[in-house]
Amino acid sequence: MNATPATPQSVGIVQTEYVDLFSDGQTSLALDCGATLAPVRVAYETYGRLNADKSNAILLCHALSGNAHAAGRHHENDRKPGWWDNFIGPGKPFDTDRYFVICSNNLGGCDGSTGPSSINPATGRPFGLSFPMITIADMARLQKALIDHLRIPQLMAVAGGSMGGMIALQWGLDFPDAMRAVVVIASTPRLSAQNIAFNAVARQAIMVDPHFNGGDYYGEGVERPVNGLALARMIAHITYLSEKGLHEKFGRQLQDRKQLSFGFERDFAVESYLHYQGSTFVKKFDANTYLYITKAMDYFDPFPDPETTAKRLLAFNARLLVISFDTDWRFDTSRSKELVKMLNWHRKTVTFEQFRSIHGHDAFLIDDPHYMESLSSFLKRLLSEIRHPKVALT
Amino acid sequence: MNATPATPQSVGIVQTEYVDLFSDGQTSLALDCGATLAPVRVAYETYGRLNADKSNAILLCHALSGNAHAAGRHHENDRKPGWWDNFIGPGKPFDTDRYFVICSNNLGGCDGSTGPSSINPATGRPFGLSFPMITIADMARLQKALIDHLRIPQLMAVAGGSMGGMIALQWGLDFPDAMRAVVVIASTPRLSAQNIAFNAVARQAIMVDPHFNGGDYYGEGVERPVNGLALARMIAHITYLSEKGLHEKFGRQLQDRKQLSFGFERDFAVESYLHYQGSTFVKKFDANTYLYITKAMDYFDPFPDPETTAKRLLAFNARLLVISFDTDWRFDTSRSKELVKMLNWHRKTVTFEQFRSIHGHDAFLIDDPHYMESLSSFLKRLLSEIRHPKVALT
Repeated sequence: MNATPATPQSVGIVQTEYVDLFSDGQTSLALDCGATLAPVRVAYETYGRLNADKSNAILLCHALSGNAHAAGRHHENDRKPGWWDNFIGPGKPFDTDRYFVICSNNLGGCDGSTGPSSINPATGRPFGLSFPMITIADMARLQKALIDHLRIPQLMAVAGGSMGGMIALQWGLDFPDAMRAVVVIASTPRLSAQNIAFNAVARQAIMVDPHFNGGDYYGEGVERPVNGLALARMIAHITYLSEKGLHEKFGRQLQDRKQLSFGFERDFAVESYLHYQGSTFVKKFDANTYLYITKAMDYFDPFPDPETTAKRLLAFNARLLVISFDTDWRFDTSRSKELVKMLNWHRKTVTFEQFRSIHGHDAFLIDDPHYMESLSSFLKRLLSEIRHPKVALT
Repeated sequence: MNATPATPQSVGIVQTEYVDLFSDGQTSLALDCGATLAPVRVAYETYGRLNADKSNAILLCHALSGNAHAAGRHHENDRKPGWWDNFIGPGKPFDTDRYFVICSNNLGGCDGSTGPSSINPATGRPFGLSFPMITIADMARLQKALIDHLRIPQLMAVAGGSMGGMIALQWGLDFPDAMRAVVVIASTPRLSAQNIAFNAVARQAIMVDPHFNGGDYYGEGVERPVNGLALARMIAHITYLSEKGLHEKFGRQLQDRKQLSFGFERDFAVESYLHYQGSTFVKKFDANTYLYITKAMDYFDPFPDPETTAKRLLAFNARLLVISFDTDWRFDTSRSKELVKMLNWHRKTVTFEQFRSIHGHDAFLIDDPHYMESLSSFLKRLLSEIRHPKVALT
């Protein structure tokens, strides 16, 4: 453990695995809305090796547009690695020489796990909007079923950024003995009115797209609501970046031209960038999933009043690490502090760190030595506590 | 002058007037893009009376969605007064007992002045996207033609908020002897990358609406791109309000329900509010005007580099009052300060005030005693200087 860590490396070639849970014809996933789902497919990937006493497992929860593919590449010529590849691998914060890292596509997703684009077994057709409304707690519940399936009695940690942070927090509330620590990064205990407003506009953009067709747009040759989904992504993308970051990256720089067009072409580099973000997103994401997931975020509110908070935190058992970034205006540092304050008030073990970054909300995905070191040492210490449980740690 | 001011009153019933400028068959309005327009109709309203020496005229410049109807009502049963009625009238900051106040619909607008929905005399059909691209300087140029037409040799002040502030600033640069003072409220010397990004998404929302039809959607029974325009408005509206203001007004309050719908209805009050803003806006605004005006704002950049700035400010002659609001994140206080700093550097006479408000960018439209008093005393002092030119003012 004290050996000099090797240069950070990739986890190499990885494969997505699939498991059909609640497929015994008897059990089902009970959802907060009252509906049940069965069977439920989960797409997941794992990196590193589970140790003999199964004490080194970390569950990573992805954000809105993520998926199970968090690290490595699917084949030699894969153009891009997983979405958090810079944080997962030998010598990286989620050090695969030490930990067994698991990431699954969220319930309601569109990248392997059951969601609105999956086939409804009752009809043989894609669910579309007949998919039941899901919540952050439902997502955590399905992950818990996956962890049970993998026969891991207790996770070392559940960690996530943005919406992933909400799911991680939900684990701490709903399954207090199922993990030793929860890591909540660039997240919030609830969406603000402004957050809900941005989500509402994004959903409206999708739903007024004439190709939306009430959510029924699957099948060969059927046009999809790509314009609406691209708009939704463009709107959201502005909130992921800081004003300062956009200024430094683009400023008022023109795109491929020396003079203003005096027309409705894209004059500024920031316009081209946003359009590019929109048009690439629609190639890999499902509009219905966007609707369900944003609604799940809107609904997330585990601490609506002091009484409920006290009750929900009674059993909360995990160490909590909360991380925020100074230029994040989507989930401002004050939201993280609000969470920390509540947990402190209820005498829970909380560590809070704010890091400087120019990258706004997206900072949680981006290499920063201080941020990475903080994650890294928190996790190492957890593992060291498990291995040397009698050593008192100050 | 020292009499106790009467209780603020309304300007009463007012009428919009129309004038066709450049209608002599010889002159035309020269635009920055190189094109010319003739004739050009201007819709305008006036409040108060021009004094004998024509020294008490104030030109108000409206923002994106404003029009010529700044104060009073058009008839007895008019449901709403003009857009800045709380600031214009006897005893109000733009005191119609003292000043002659003029407000005209901007070039490119959709409320009486020539814009993309006007008939193109060359074709007999609405311009649509064949309307030439316009700039903030073009808007100021048309206003100057109106003021010349009204035979006012020098305005006491040109004032405006948001985009209106840009137009007012442009007056100071382009017509340095045409006014004694310029008032720039909640504005900026240029749009940031983030501002441009929001405008780009709004334009995209309009242009992908299937009823947009390349801007050719006028005429009886033709459907208009109302969904796209409503989306554009919803996006923009979020940027007009502060996060704190939205929180205090709506928080996570549900709309007409006690429980979450677990469906895609509008659960939260903030959603209903935004949808309402979108749906009312499309009844009175033209989508093409939205495209042209946002582009004009994107292009506004009178101070691109120190050399140009020095050159442009050489003749700048007006007293400048710059006002910003602490929760305005569309045009943050730092933008106003940037303008003030430039003017100070070039030894111009600048007064800067930041006011507290919870209303974000919209604060410039909203009653606040400190803000109103500041405007009021700045204008009174201007008039007093004109009337007593020999009195030295400290």
